[in-house]
Amino acid sequence: MQSLRPNPRLRRAGARFHLRRDFRSATVANLGPGFDFLGCAVDGLGDHVTLRVDPSVRAGEVLISEITGTTTKLSTNPLRNCAGIAAIATMKMLGIRSVGLSLDLHKGLPLGSGLGSSAASAAAAAVAVNEIFGRKLVREELVLAGLESEAKVSGYHADNIAPAIMGGFVLIRNYEPLDLKPLRFPEDKELFFVLVSPEFEAPTKKMRAALPTEIPMVHHVWNSSQAAALVAAVLEGDAVMLGKALSSDKVAVKKAALEAGAFGCTISGAGPTAVAVIDAAEKGEEIGERMSVACVKKLDKVGARLVSSVSR
Amino acid sequence: MQSLRPNPRLRRAGARFHLRRDFRSATVANLGPGFDFLGCAVDGLGDHVTLRVDPSVRAGEVLISEITGTTTKLSTNPLRNCAGIAAIATMKMLGIRSVGLSLDLHKGLPLGSGLGSSAASAAAAAVAVNEIFGRKLVREELVLAGLESEAKVSGYHADNIAPAIMGGFVLIRNYEPLDLKPLRFPEDKELFFVLVSPEFEAPTKKMRAALPTEIPMVHHVWNSSQAAALVAAVLEGDAVMLGKALSSDKVAVKKAALEAGAFGCTISGAGPTAVAVIDAAEKGEEIGERMSVACVKKLDKVGARLVSSVSR
Repeated sequence: MQSLRPNPRLRRAGARFHLRRDFRSATVANLGPGFDFLGCAVDGLGDHVTLRVDPSVRAGEVLISEITGTTTKLSTNPLRNCAGIAAIATMKMLGIRSVGLSLDLHKGLPLGSGLGSSAASAAAAAVAVNEIFGRKLVREELVLAGLESEAKVSGYHADNIAPAIMGGFVLIRNYEPLDLKPLRFPEDKELFFVLVSPEFEAPTKKMRAALPTEIPMVHHVWNSSQAAALVAAVLEGDAVMLGKALSSDKVAVKKAALEAGAFGCTISGAGPTAVAVIDAAEKGEEIGERMSVACVKKLDKVGARLVSSVSR
Repeated sequence: MQSLRPNPRLRRAGARFHLRRDFRSATVANLGPGFDFLGCAVDGLGDHVTLRVDPSVRAGEVLISEITGTTTKLSTNPLRNCAGIAAIATMKMLGIRSVGLSLDLHKGLPLGSGLGSSAASAAAAAVAVNEIFGRKLVREELVLAGLESEAKVSGYHADNIAPAIMGGFVLIRNYEPLDLKPLRFPEDKELFFVLVSPEFEAPTKKMRAALPTEIPMVHHVWNSSQAAALVAAVLEGDAVMLGKALSSDKVAVKKAALEAGAFGCTISGAGPTAVAVIDAAEKGEEIGERMSVACVKKLDKVGARLVSSVSR
């Protein structure tokens, strides 16, 4: 196990406490036929975590000092809060046993929206802890830390936490051992999402309980083929094919989106957010109007990242 | 509808009858998690069709004059023979109502091997008829003609006939309307298959009847994710990932193949042929020995083709 080694650059600057702020993008998981094994990161939406080494906190522990933003009903008990659980898991992986951390969480995502609210907090916390101690862990290791939080809050599924941390599209190939396959959307192409979030919550655990335990073979073959087409569409940067593959799910707002020119539409995560895909931002505005309240967001190719760093 | 227009080049040469010979490669369908929607063509194995315009055959009809090769128990009734059905379907699509055709079929593939024996004959016949009348139909149209044969013989499935005609890997995205997505394996990379065909037949219709009608959701998700990984592996030319994805099926000879260095192993089609993948031919020989009787074949990137053309 490693002992605490604060970021050498900060140490050189004589910093005693490190203030870090990380921003994490929202994720669209399930992605129609990619149910439970394919997710992607959406730019410009997400949670913020502010982190500092705090001498008043017991070594190896995390204090959640403040929760602000879209919801304040989250627990500040670090063992029952996504950011807290992920931060502690990351500290353990780093072998940090000599200092404690203070964490502020700003929620940019509503709970139960299907946009990976829990993963957004966990990703920000895991990346922040790794940053503050000199980036010793690679992204795949941070996904493992984030998964500890996901397992407790919404189920042992990596399709939100993996893209939240790694950016872009991520295919979950296996859990034992965790085997992640980033699917690179071509650098020279653009992908936008039109997101519609109705005003009600759809808690993941409740929604998952409503799923059938068996599915007909014919649906299995159909869904698998659409998932396969979805992967081909991502790798080839084909927004039209991507939209068609997504749309193999049935969605209420789908018709309006398709009529307005979207390439496809599905429910994100456990819902109720609906998502449509396009390749230009302006087209998204019209589609959004027809789908009622909506926002247009870009594919986030980077994942959770450091937003600002202040030493004091 | 078009009337008969023999290939103009042959007409210029004063040819009255056209002798055509087409070779068609075998196919590996189902491909583990790609069950029923993904297949690929294998080079150097397959059926031959020899075709000629025959004044003794009634206009718009096909006479099967000879069947040779690995099996002779096939019907020579063109309405009950894969090559005959596909040839007639192709003639209909071309609007050929003024001449009849004579067809010799040389079977290079055993029946019920899982290597798409019926599709091999249908593909050769469809491509041959299209060739003899000047290539008016595109490959996707020929797949439709071949599908008429498949529907009668082994079921309405395009995962053999599509790669048999188009070459390479083909993803079947939809049937109504038929929507085929060729998956291009990178030109600069190689892919080899080690094929083991036990000495018994596994008729497709019988094998399909043994399939479960429902599958557990958890298996659905697992299989879909492996299918998705398989597509990524093909497009990126990653033989190792391709092998791993294939192996998500359970196969008796699998262990021996993997121990000898194959990247993965599965049952082809309805079986009993087992197939392993590698990226170099010599490695295949060793794996083949361990899997008992086997042959090493290359991915066929082209599909059914004209082998020779004689005018007389």
